[in-house]
Amino acid sequence: MTPEQAIRLLEEHRDEIDQIDLAILERLNERARVVERIGAIKKEARLPIYEPKREDAVFRNVTRGNQGPLSEAAVRRLFERIIDEMRTLQRERMEKENEA
Amino acid sequence: MTPEQAIRLLEEHRDEIDQIDLAILERLNERARVVERIGAIKKEARLPIYEPKREDAVFRNVTRGNQGPLSEAAVRRLFERIIDEMRTLQRERMEKENEA
Repeated sequence: MTPEQAIRLLEEHRDEIDQIDLAILERLNERARVVERIGAIKKEARLPIYEPKREDAVFRNVTRGNQGPLSEAAVRRLFERIIDEMRTLQRERMEKENEA
Repeated sequence: MTPEQAIRLLEEHRDEIDQIDLAILERLNERARVVERIGAIKKEARLPIYEPKREDAVFRNVTRGNQGPLSEAAVRRLFERIIDEMRTLQRERMEKENEA
């Protein structure tokens, strides 16, 4: 492989990653919208917001569904971050509603 | 909304989240496979593995493409975790190769 060929191949792969990232981002925002709907339902039905058992189910779903190359530990850390950001978003929304 | 209705609605939304999570997971593994190909190309062409400028481009791509509800800061933190896990995977692979 010449350096020119390598650089062209890298470019192509990076474009592919950029597309994948936008698809991941779209799904993350979609997930956030569903979490917001869940929050609204819980609020109306006066159900508890935080349910640790549900979090376990989320981790079970993704670790079972994982076919790699990411390790189970990596998948767990990634979804810990995702859950955490969803919680942050809900907290920010509630603070805004309470201010209003 | 009766408690029964709320619980049924929550179930439906959770099924939806489980599906979204599996789609995110599939994309994350797809991204990992592309990163592995990039690593192989760089190795063959003796190019540097770590390129901070490329990371800036990754963040630019997703913060530009973000339509919310996730905040820009949240998107940045999420993709920091994603990049970090991809790096961990590459490091683990290299260690295995060196052992072999």
